[in-house]
Amino acid sequence: MKAYKAYFIDLDGTMYRGKEAIPEAKEFIRQLQENQAPYLFVTNNSSRTRMKTVENLKKHGIEAKEEQVLTPSIAAANYIKQNDPHATVYFIGEKGVEDALRSEGVELTTKNPDYVVVGIDRHNSYKKIKDACLHIQNGAKFLATNPDIRVPTEEGFVPGNGAYVNLIKEVTKTEPIIVGKPDRLMIDVALKELNVEPSDAIMVGDNYETDIKAGIRAGLDTLHVQTGVTSKEDLKDVEVQPTYSLATLAEWQVNV
Amino acid sequence: MKAYKAYFIDLDGTMYRGKEAIPEAKEFIRQLQENQAPYLFVTNNSSRTRMKTVENLKKHGIEAKEEQVLTPSIAAANYIKQNDPHATVYFIGEKGVEDALRSEGVELTTKNPDYVVVGIDRHNSYKKIKDACLHIQNGAKFLATNPDIRVPTEEGFVPGNGAYVNLIKEVTKTEPIIVGKPDRLMIDVALKELNVEPSDAIMVGDNYETDIKAGIRAGLDTLHVQTGVTSKEDLKDVEVQPTYSLATLAEWQVNV
Repeated sequence: MKAYKAYFIDLDGTMYRGKEAIPEAKEFIRQLQENQAPYLFVTNNSSRTRMKTVENLKKHGIEAKEEQVLTPSIAAANYIKQNDPHATVYFIGEKGVEDALRSEGVELTTKNPDYVVVGIDRHNSYKKIKDACLHIQNGAKFLATNPDIRVPTEEGFVPGNGAYVNLIKEVTKTEPIIVGKPDRLMIDVALKELNVEPSDAIMVGDNYETDIKAGIRAGLDTLHVQTGVTSKEDLKDVEVQPTYSLATLAEWQVNV
Repeated sequence: MKAYKAYFIDLDGTMYRGKEAIPEAKEFIRQLQENQAPYLFVTNNSSRTRMKTVENLKKHGIEAKEEQVLTPSIAAANYIKQNDPHATVYFIGEKGVEDALRSEGVELTTKNPDYVVVGIDRHNSYKKIKDACLHIQNGAKFLATNPDIRVPTEEGFVPGNGAYVNLIKEVTKTEPIIVGKPDRLMIDVALKELNVEPSDAIMVGDNYETDIKAGIRAGLDTLHVQTGVTSKEDLKDVEVQPTYSLATLAEWQVNV
């Protein structure tokens, strides 16, 4: 197997399954560490902070540093800061979004923002959504952390961030810039962070529709692992195949 | 002109324009009263109660009784009561929706409802929308008062009820029953209320996309008035023409 200079690794379905550990994942990370292969965890979860993500990985026996976690919130903050260091931002979102924007030193505002960032907010209100719509109509750029419309829970499907993003899109007639997978923006931020070329990196994930597609769109090799959403069977129906598809990460050999 | 046994009349753009009176409208209503021609005001506004609608008409010099006002909220309550007299209802909406459901004697609940009624609620929250989604997935019937996605205000477009209805539709993968114009349900309720056949009634309104379409769908003659949204020019592009199109209601002669 090729010697990749960077591994971008999905979390749920790849490193663990909900509250359940995936034993092969822990061993895979241990191998990366042993071989000093650089890696980042790249997740679509916008509400969790880096610290909470690290704590959650620890529960599953996986060691990680905060700077090894890339969320759509971090990527959005990073993107804004790179494009316009003095930009002001109005946001909808939970602690993950707020912390990310603050940690990048972005100025938050409720009046005349340059950007509107929309992440899942389980305490949102008509007023918050309305204000986002008005800011966008006044010319603010519209950034969405992730496009998931419905999120499965024990009670049934509940609204995901994409449901509100689509609502704002319909009201404002404005297309959002989507940060999360399957869009490539977060992967581009990850490449910059580790300072590698797309051809030297690989995206590892269980979900063809998000992880693998994002990798393909950003020009990376992709490693599909059959421990989550997309089965081996499902791959028969897709046009562009992942570079590799493995039953578990135990089948992967890290070369450097 | 034909002697109609019932007039169904739109409000904004037909009886007044925002806060501005339309003088010919007042005279038209006076003629209906003089000739004892039965009429109902049929509006897509779900948040205003019957009483508030009557008060608003009075400001423009038009007398009306509460029972002459049909809103999507009243029509929804009426529809539920006719289909299932013992139905329980979870609703999202303002006073107009709540009062309408209570006045029809519908039992309101937040647990295991038979129906979910969604009207505009400028105090809605993630939780309210989520609960509506879960109830619908548990089998509750999904009723929407009106399908307006964006509402023009002085500040810009703000989310209308249709924006939230579409969000719930995407999350639950369930089509709503839409009560308001251009759907025919509210017109059907109006026909029953005045006990007339579609061929004996006429729908009067300024908006081709809502008022006139609703009349056509319910099998009524239609009277388009050029005092609001749809101009004479706009009608050149529509396939099914209204029965009549007049510059103002002063050109109409009430026959009985």
